[in-house]
Amino acid sequence: VIVYGRQPVREALRGRREVARVWASPRAAREPWLAGADGGGRGGVELLAADDAALAERCGSSDHQGVCAEVSPYQYADPLELLAADDALVVCLDEVQDPHNLGAVCRVAECAGAAGVVVGERRSAQVTPAVCRASAGAVEHLPVARARNLADYLAAAKEREAWVYGASTAQGAVPYDEPDYAGRVVLVLGSEGRGLRPRVAAACDRLVALPVRGRVESLNVSTAAAALVYGILHSRRPG
Amino acid sequence: VIVYGRQPVREALRGRREVARVWASPRAAREPWLAGADGGGRGGVELLAADDAALAERCGSSDHQGVCAEVSPYQYADPLELLAADDALVVCLDEVQDPHNLGAVCRVAECAGAAGVVVGERRSAQVTPAVCRASAGAVEHLPVARARNLADYLAAAKEREAWVYGASTAQGAVPYDEPDYAGRVVLVLGSEGRGLRPRVAAACDRLVALPVRGRVESLNVSTAAAALVYGILHSRRPG
Repeated sequence: VIVYGRQPVREALRGRREVARVWASPRAAREPWLAGADGGGRGGVELLAADDAALAERCGSSDHQGVCAEVSPYQYADPLELLAADDALVVCLDEVQDPHNLGAVCRVAECAGAAGVVVGERRSAQVTPAVCRASAGAVEHLPVARARNLADYLAAAKEREAWVYGASTAQGAVPYDEPDYAGRVVLVLGSEGRGLRPRVAAACDRLVALPVRGRVESLNVSTAAAALVYGILHSRRPG
Repeated sequence: VIVYGRQPVREALRGRREVARVWASPRAAREPWLAGADGGGRGGVELLAADDAALAERCGSSDHQGVCAEVSPYQYADPLELLAADDALVVCLDEVQDPHNLGAVCRVAECAGAAGVVVGERRSAQVTPAVCRASAGAVEHLPVARARNLADYLAAAKEREAWVYGASTAQGAVPYDEPDYAGRVVLVLGSEGRGLRPRVAAACDRLVALPVRGRVESLNVSTAAAALVYGILHSRRPG
């Protein structure tokens, strides 16, 4: 598998995957993180020269920023193991198909210290190189897991004492800053426009809504995730 | 000026700009918002047929979703007038150059009911068609203003009794959920990586930081804006 872009390659080098080799343009190869006295953060990984055209062909994208790496396939986590800690926060995405959105949500989740992200196996973006890029390499550190059926996963999470909150603008949703979000929390977000599927919404303990005061009716899924995840961290803060 | 994409054209039609005409592919022209019995939301604006290639040429982008409109130039607001209300919340961007980021921040600001967004005149993304697209049309409703010099604008805002908060991960920043954000608030965000310029940071009353618990050290500017803006709304909530 090829990952590309400065941050994705850098995080792959210090993440869990095996990195076979790195290709870089002459310019990128001089950057300290790649070229430093000790081979930068490469830990002995072979560095090969490549021009932009060769990189673009290898990556299948021109969005490589002069660097790519051959890495072992992405290892998904077990979705229920993400709930191990008694204050685990897990973010689930219901049929979010845009790789940029999945990547951006993973970046938020990793920054905020979430236990992981869960996506469905079908009609959902998986952890592709474009997602690695959009996550700024966050997926190399953040566990991402797949659930065959998201509603079933939510039911299993509830059996493990998680509270499941679904982001929704539907009637019946409570203001997102009302719950205290103590204990294990699963936060479920749907795709823009479509929102949560009925079976997924029904599997939630509570639907929560961000206040919307403008004329454009919905946030992007990654900005909604940021507002909700940081709202959850805040409500858990002692005092 | 041409704006393109489904939401940007739709919001332009119900926004402040004059719309001269709309071009749409046969498929887009059948969508209810454009074609409805009363001419949809078009309010009598002429609808012309165009194929995808003609649309792409007119837009200078293939990201048109089958529809574009010729509209009057974007009218920027006066940056100090955004502070008229005694609880105005204004979001400033310090040299954010990526149009996607400016658009995404505008969308967050509009959704959250902010008074407006202020950008610098130089080395900063302006309200281009790509920004309209990335904002999902939010810029048609949200006032966007330009400041010749952002540090000077912040000084003028303080004279108008605004509190100026700069998002920062530097030492000395307080947790973002500590201030009460009462009254007029200006929130300043810098670009990813570079952050706030020293003169801009020095012009802030307080630097505030989101908790970062992961290994990827910073949020995207739009997700940081979402977490901060909704945090400000929350802290202002009575009770």
